[in-house]
Amino acid sequence: METYYTMCTQKRQEELCRVRGELAAWSAKGLKLNMARGKPGKEQLDMVSDILTVLQDSEQCISDGIDARNYGELAGLPAARRYWADVLGCSPEETFVGGSSSLTLMYDTISKAYTHGLLHSPEPWCRLEKVKFLCPCPGYDRHFRITESFGAELISVPMTPQGPDMDLVESLVKDPAVKGIWCVPKYSNPDGIIYSPEAIRRLAGLKPAAPDFVLMWDNAYCVHEFEGPFVPFQDILTLCREAGNPDMVFEFASTSKITLPGAGISVLAASRDNIQYMQKLMGVQMISYDKVNQLRHVLYLKDRETTLALMARHSRILGPKFRAVLDALDRELAPRGLGSWQRPRGGYFVSYYAPRGTARRILQLCREAGVVMTPAGATYPYGVDPEDSNIRIAPSLPPVEELEQAMEIFCLCVRQAALESLGE
Amino acid sequence: METYYTMCTQKRQEELCRVRGELAAWSAKGLKLNMARGKPGKEQLDMVSDILTVLQDSEQCISDGIDARNYGELAGLPAARRYWADVLGCSPEETFVGGSSSLTLMYDTISKAYTHGLLHSPEPWCRLEKVKFLCPCPGYDRHFRITESFGAELISVPMTPQGPDMDLVESLVKDPAVKGIWCVPKYSNPDGIIYSPEAIRRLAGLKPAAPDFVLMWDNAYCVHEFEGPFVPFQDILTLCREAGNPDMVFEFASTSKITLPGAGISVLAASRDNIQYMQKLMGVQMISYDKVNQLRHVLYLKDRETTLALMARHSRILGPKFRAVLDALDRELAPRGLGSWQRPRGGYFVSYYAPRGTARRILQLCREAGVVMTPAGATYPYGVDPEDSNIRIAPSLPPVEELEQAMEIFCLCVRQAALESLGE
Repeated sequence: METYYTMCTQKRQEELCRVRGELAAWSAKGLKLNMARGKPGKEQLDMVSDILTVLQDSEQCISDGIDARNYGELAGLPAARRYWADVLGCSPEETFVGGSSSLTLMYDTISKAYTHGLLHSPEPWCRLEKVKFLCPCPGYDRHFRITESFGAELISVPMTPQGPDMDLVESLVKDPAVKGIWCVPKYSNPDGIIYSPEAIRRLAGLKPAAPDFVLMWDNAYCVHEFEGPFVPFQDILTLCREAGNPDMVFEFASTSKITLPGAGISVLAASRDNIQYMQKLMGVQMISYDKVNQLRHVLYLKDRETTLALMARHSRILGPKFRAVLDALDRELAPRGLGSWQRPRGGYFVSYYAPRGTARRILQLCREAGVVMTPAGATYPYGVDPEDSNIRIAPSLPPVEELEQAMEIFCLCVRQAALESLGE
Repeated sequence: METYYTMCTQKRQEELCRVRGELAAWSAKGLKLNMARGKPGKEQLDMVSDILTVLQDSEQCISDGIDARNYGELAGLPAARRYWADVLGCSPEETFVGGSSSLTLMYDTISKAYTHGLLHSPEPWCRLEKVKFLCPCPGYDRHFRITESFGAELISVPMTPQGPDMDLVESLVKDPAVKGIWCVPKYSNPDGIIYSPEAIRRLAGLKPAAPDFVLMWDNAYCVHEFEGPFVPFQDILTLCREAGNPDMVFEFASTSKITLPGAGISVLAASRDNIQYMQKLMGVQMISYDKVNQLRHVLYLKDRETTLALMARHSRILGPKFRAVLDALDRELAPRGLGSWQRPRGGYFVSYYAPRGTARRILQLCREAGVVMTPAGATYPYGVDPEDSNIRIAPSLPPVEELEQAMEIFCLCVRQAALESLGE
């Protein structure tokens, strides 16, 4: 097979004709396929739905002498704090267990930085002329949007295969207006990159000018391998403490992709001083989170080991889906020289880099053919990808057969957009 | 029995001696009794714990074609929105169903007013020199603390037996810095007052100078009678709309005292425009709330009628507790001329007005004797009761026998404090 870049014009025209015809045939079927969001599929949900019945009666609701059904224990059920400490490698006193969404805990952290300030803030961020936030990109649109919604200036930092460009990060944090950085250290969203030990060491050891600089450490995929064995990770709280930055990091995780996305539990992990400070602020907005659901999770997931065993069962569902995506890219696009991609072993995405300037057109064609994807640019601050190239593929929701159809359509769209951009 | 105010000095001294002796005897028992917070008791929790098993399998999780287990439906499961609309008398499109805490929805509303502004805000409140908030008092400490935590100036408005002093409210809202008012319209916390139709009509028809004035309508006890039949209430959204203030009101409620306080569901009700506006802001902090728990509640509570039947069962547990409190006050304090109190038929509190200047002393004595109560002053802005008189009694948590002991101790403490204040 010849790459489009070496093809003569006439061949490209014939190819474009062929591709258009094939896409039209797909469009005519009126399919509705969705690869937009990292939503677990029905098979995964069914697999964990026995969590619904793990808590059956009143007696079971007493945990460490605490009745999970009543008000109280703002920082979470002690058993749930021990569970998360076991998973993350920190201590229970360094955890704050929340409701169904870690995104909300992240939002709360930034929101409180704006309205009240963080532990070491000279003043609330809303009083400052300018707040800047570092956004390794491509990255997670919902992270960027939180800081954007508060009016922070988003600074793009390129991702490398080892994590964010650390030379740039170290230079940028010398600006006291730079108040933090968004990180997904394991299976980064969307590239699926695991930050190198060196990058993590440098992040933990940052010497920012802002005394209240915050490392927003979203460990969303800490146990989320879909291929191969569990990859251990270091406790970021320990690393920051050892580097003299005990209060710099807020780590986040949830069971959204371990049990039920709509009904899991979340955690914020930070230094004891941070937890104490946040608890004082959170106590104004909340009496306590849903401890019954926390208890359900403790009974169901038990500990890190039991959780890893469950994640291995998830991987048996997810693995084939990711392989279907990568196989399609390898088969349809690689030989034609169209774009590049990583080969992640965990997380929820495949990050595809289309030929420069074609991503938006590709997604328009996908939409017309009935395939919904994350909008182009979403993985960049302000939704603008300067290269118009990155496309986040989320293969978890559709069954494999639908996914194969969706990828066939997707690859045709890439081919058409590339051919169009190469000119007639 | 003679009132303390007509007793001669010698008799009072003898009485003080007697009371001290009795209190010392109670103290010696080392009891630990709690009437501090409106926490349902174990018997109530056990009564509703069959909600834990109402949702058993995967098939049940599909509601209106939506899988409650997965991400999505930020404004809540349609069935949960219909449920709340039925209870509150508004339409499903006017509801936003949240997580386990209505307090959090109230906090989110005020927080967003500060950081982003409400629908009709010329600018976010954090940009303003001064924000004032009306606090009918005695009132709910957690309400006051939310606005206090953002730096608002809290303005006390006296409660009358018909609701807040409306002449004063109408005059205060002419100040454009006055941005809202906290209301618990049915069984007000702590007085247990039901706002009169006239007061509600005047609140709905307010003509505030601030275009983004907000009526914070905490309908916490909307179906919470513990004595007598259900008392219907009018839909505040309709009243505000009819008065030309469609976007002025945010109503809140939750199932915290219907099902499980630690694991209920909450609701915010407001105009369609407000819901749309808030949804846009909430979408940054949340993908969706726990719809599995929303579904559990829909299956368990079904509708308004089924909910009222359940509340009647709660009242059979709560009624005797409230009667025990009121009986003790009637028996021990009324004949001695000590203080005054309302006789609520719903809600979670009895509001006791001690002789002026004695509330803090009474609660100190209670503490020493092993009875924990809401701190004196808590029901006033900044925790300062200018009369040092109001004490909130929360009888729901202890079993009746413990409650009777606690009230016996409480009444002795009132007697001792009153005698002390009358001088030797």
